[in-house]
Amino acid sequence: MPLLNEAAKGVYVIAVTPFSDAGEVDWASVDRMVDFYEEKGVTGLTILGQLGEAPKLTSEESREIARRVIARANVPVVVGVTAPGLAPMRELADSVMEMGAAGVMVAPPWTTKTDDQAYAFYLSVGEALGQTPWVLQDYPLTTNVTIAPKVIDRIIRDVPTCVMLKHEDWPGLAKITALRASSDKGETRRISILCGNGGLFLPEEMGRGADGAMTGFCFPEMMVGVVENYGKGEIERAHDLFDAYLPLARYEQQQGIGLAARKYVLAKRGVIASAALRKPGAALSPGDIADVERLLARQSKRLAEISA
Amino acid sequence: MPLLNEAAKGVYVIAVTPFSDAGEVDWASVDRMVDFYEEKGVTGLTILGQLGEAPKLTSEESREIARRVIARANVPVVVGVTAPGLAPMRELADSVMEMGAAGVMVAPPWTTKTDDQAYAFYLSVGEALGQTPWVLQDYPLTTNVTIAPKVIDRIIRDVPTCVMLKHEDWPGLAKITALRASSDKGETRRISILCGNGGLFLPEEMGRGADGAMTGFCFPEMMVGVVENYGKGEIERAHDLFDAYLPLARYEQQQGIGLAARKYVLAKRGVIASAALRKPGAALSPGDIADVERLLARQSKRLAEISA
Amino acid sequence: MPLLNEAAKGVYVIAVTPFSDAGEVDWASVDRMVDFYEEKGVTGLTILGQLGEAPKLTSEESREIARRVIARANVPVVVGVTAPGLAPMRELADSVMEMGAAGVMVAPPWTTKTDDQAYAFYLSVGEALGQTPWVLQDYPLTTNVTIAPKVIDRIIRDVPTCVMLKHEDWPGLAKITALRASSDKGETRRISILCGNGGLFLPEEMGRGADGAMTGFCFPEMMVGVVENYGKGEIERAHDLFDAYLPLARYEQQQGIGLAARKYVLAKRGVIASAALRKPGAALSPGDIADVERLLARQSKRLAEISA
Amino acid sequence: MPLLNEAAKGVYVIAVTPFSDAGEVDWASVDRMVDFYEEKGVTGLTILGQLGEAPKLTSEESREIARRVIARANVPVVVGVTAPGLAPMRELADSVMEMGAAGVMVAPPWTTKTDDQAYAFYLSVGEALGQTPWVLQDYPLTTNVTIAPKVIDRIIRDVPTCVMLKHEDWPGLAKITALRASSDKGETRRISILCGNGGLFLPEEMGRGADGAMTGFCFPEMMVGVVENYGKGEIERAHDLFDAYLPLARYEQQQGIGLAARKYVLAKRGVIASAALRKPGAALSPGDIADVERLLARQSKRLAEISA
Repeated sequence: MPLLNEAAKGVYVIAVTPFSDAGEVDWASVDRMVDFYEEKGVTGLTILGQLGEAPKLTSEESREIARRVIARANVPVVVGVTAPGLAPMRELADSVMEMGAAGVMVAPPWTTKTDDQAYAFYLSVGEALGQTPWVLQDYPLTTNVTIAPKVIDRIIRDVPTCVMLKHEDWPGLAKITALRASSDKGETRRISILCGNGGLFLPEEMGRGADGAMTGFCFPEMMVGVVENYGKGEIERAHDLFDAYLPLARYEQQQGIGLAARKYVLAKRGVIASAALRKPGAALSPGDIADVERLLARQSKRLAEISA
Repeated sequence: MPLLNEAAKGVYVIAVTPFSDAGEVDWASVDRMVDFYEEKGVTGLTILGQLGEAPKLTSEESREIARRVIARANVPVVVGVTAPGLAPMRELADSVMEMGAAGVMVAPPWTTKTDDQAYAFYLSVGEALGQTPWVLQDYPLTTNVTIAPKVIDRIIRDVPTCVMLKHEDWPGLAKITALRASSDKGETRRISILCGNGGLFLPEEMGRGADGAMTGFCFPEMMVGVVENYGKGEIERAHDLFDAYLPLARYEQQQGIGLAARKYVLAKRGVIASAALRKPGAALSPGDIADVERLLARQSKRLAEISA
Repeated sequence: MPLLNEAAKGVYVIAVTPFSDAGEVDWASVDRMVDFYEEKGVTGLTILGQLGEAPKLTSEESREIARRVIARANVPVVVGVTAPGLAPMRELADSVMEMGAAGVMVAPPWTTKTDDQAYAFYLSVGEALGQTPWVLQDYPLTTNVTIAPKVIDRIIRDVPTCVMLKHEDWPGLAKITALRASSDKGETRRISILCGNGGLFLPEEMGRGADGAMTGFCFPEMMVGVVENYGKGEIERAHDLFDAYLPLARYEQQQGIGLAARKYVLAKRGVIASAALRKPGAALSPGDIADVERLLARQSKRLAEISA
Repeated sequence: MPLLNEAAKGVYVIAVTPFSDAGEVDWASVDRMVDFYEEKGVTGLTILGQLGEAPKLTSEESREIARRVIARANVPVVVGVTAPGLAPMRELADSVMEMGAAGVMVAPPWTTKTDDQAYAFYLSVGEALGQTPWVLQDYPLTTNVTIAPKVIDRIIRDVPTCVMLKHEDWPGLAKITALRASSDKGETRRISILCGNGGLFLPEEMGRGADGAMTGFCFPEMMVGVVENYGKGEIERAHDLFDAYLPLARYEQQQGIGLAARKYVLAKRGVIASAALRKPGAALSPGDIADVERLLARQSKRLAEISA
């Protein structure tokens, strides 16, 4: 599998972790899920992220899932390797790269406070990872660490293996504008910028110069469609698609219950066998299910209208 | 002006604070804003909230704005009186009630950690406020205080002057369901529940038993329309309206820049003279303005479609 | 009263706010407290800080206390004027400077995340305050804002009215070392550095180049003695004093209950009439009182030993 | 090795993780450290805690350290098994119990907000761990989760395998008093309470009914001495010992640099070969070392005085 590089574009969907109702990893669903994402046009897969259910896996299970997904996928796989120390981070990174991962992703520790601390952390990440290409995961809402654009620019300049930014600052449009200004002026390498936040700002992010999305909505075809249409200059078409999916995407952004909604829809679409979250995890109430069903029905209707 | 009570319904819009470009309070715009909100059908006004720009006012200006808005408004006015101590809270509350406010709103201090601490705090609020009706402001994203439904139930039972919940937990649909179950079973008084979060979950919140919205989107007619249609059982119509405004409402929910976008639109609509935020405050970039303009154009088009 | 400047040294004690048992401001105790602090050798007073009970005052009471303390004191008075906006900050600052305050103190808003944001905030503070000398309050434990030494250096360079750092980072010894290295090399002005954290690191902070303390232990003579002895090169003597008071100083650093302990001792020493905190506030339990009494007895004994 | 139970008393010291200068686990130092702690009179060992350097270990190294320590120790070993999910928690717990651990320790996830959430979490921990006895780690300063005494009482009542509280609330003396009142009245089982916070409140905690300490000061003999003297009713003697060590214990409580100071002293005492922290980690500056050396010299002198 080729390694991740600065030219990466499209949708690196954040995969869910399928479990049986009893809480066991459901390997058949893992396979089906990989196939489903590829059928929907994603250009990459991202696994073992910080949110979602990867942290509920045993270390043995984590490796097995990485192995299984990498083996089955025909697209590059990025693996989250964030850890409290450089040693366990490198251990996991080396292990998944050997399996065939395309790159790894690293978020900063919550103890990072100042510009220099953020810079120093990623400098040490670059040293620890050797030749492995990696993604800088910028996710202030969860890590509570804000990294200014000029700090990202310093990292890009000094650490050549940093090839992608997972952009998830909020609000973050000005950040994309600033980073693209730096590379347009030739002050930094132009790295890939893929956006998170459940895709809720994807059209505007594309308008600022993002290369795509790295997030996990249950209809990956929304992200794929928005990115493709933006790439073709079909801006209004991109927004039409986005708007049709937005009510459900918004519902999925609720903490906890949102992931249960995502799995509910993926199960309904036949991708995973069970919508169950592993413990401890939220479950949809009858009211939640009614909400999701209404949103799905309205979404189908609206999609039919705009494709008519 | 009649006092706030448990039967309050509709939209208590959170008013912006109009400033001139030079940063002075713009009194003509304050008046125009009150008229505008009433023309759009709001049932109440909420001023001096914790977010927005009220904290940037001098104490003299705060009182003047309260006085001006209360004098001009034909609808009830709720005034935020959250303060670090009971004494300044009561001082402000007494002052605005004398001016003719309908009630006051109080958020918990960030030091509140346990169920009993939240309960004890609101018990002391009730004692300090005497006969003044008040709104429990439940806003975990900002206060970092989560109040369980059973704690709210205890407060409702023991503090008769608590007549409304400003609901802004996120996710919070299950909380509305739980609170309504308590009052439906006769275990607690049924108080008014008005929802925040920029209206981003308003249709679903209405479906769970909310009585309306208390938030600040630049098109208050969206909230008014959703609440009215839900009240008439026109659920799909409510969602149609909501969906048409959602792309812009989502854009307005960006921290900092969102408020600048709200003021930009209100200025464009002729409500306030200047879109400026008082220092320190964000300003829209050309890219932000282009985003908002596109969203406005698309919104007009979509509203025309659904009203056709 | 002369204005605060970079040469400030010694102990600017953070004053408590004396209330009667009924919760009213106790003006006689305010006067007695000012006299007490001066008798114990403090070189300045700090009032209306962010912690403590100043936020529980009404705005009217705050101004009255500032007026009373400034009128009575023979030493310079620094007044905390931190506010969510520049306008109310300036309003309060102008008001207390007119009363005769020596300077004001400003902490950063919790929304400050990056180096440039901290710098920009203090630049705007300097502009808003005009000629008023001010203290940069660096208190990450409460504000959740960490300001790197190089950012403080930038502020010192560009804002001539910044004359003092209230140093309360934790751990913060390296920060003092870094700031003094900058001024020793002539890269920045040498401003006054007074240290907080309840005095718990005062001897080590003096060793790194601090000019004294700005904090509120119930035995201000400890801080005065440590600073004086350090100034005379009597390092071991400074530590002897410090160690004798440390067990009680440590006890006072407990959140909430610590302030109640401080007032208990000040009441016992005859400085304030009542140890009561205004609501909402903690009260000492019998067990806490027994702890404090034991610590006081042991402290007296140890002080007698070291002065023998 | 016998299992941990409610009768546990004394000092369960939190062990450091010894590394070579190059950052490799130093197995000889691990052995020496176990022997050292036992010679100093500790009654148990605690390893793989959340703070310190355990999170920097690879999963392989973690297990090897657990195996090595358990094999060598003649006292019970408690192992930290906190994890984001119940599955990896149980996996690690089962593994270390098989190696001969006496019990495990679990902190709550940061998403825990309400009383019922804390209770539900520990109920599920009890179910997941089967017969394994476990320690409830109550550490609000780091986890940001405050668990009220009445919630701990509920857990004690409903989960018989919860046999110990690692008490690290701050301030926390009232919490010990409340928990002991419950068990004294026969409302709950009396479980073991061992205290953290670097031992900085140990004498007072013993006075409230704690059974000892679970923390990591570089002179474990301080904790052992305080606990023993308190047990014999030699309260003043306990305080004398405590006060002699307090200046250094306080210095060790600085975040980051404190752990470097602890390792510096342990290396100086011949316990571990290198004072190095694994990356990323702080290192003592010359100024820090001078501070520690002064504190050590003064401590020796004071210990000689009080034992004279």
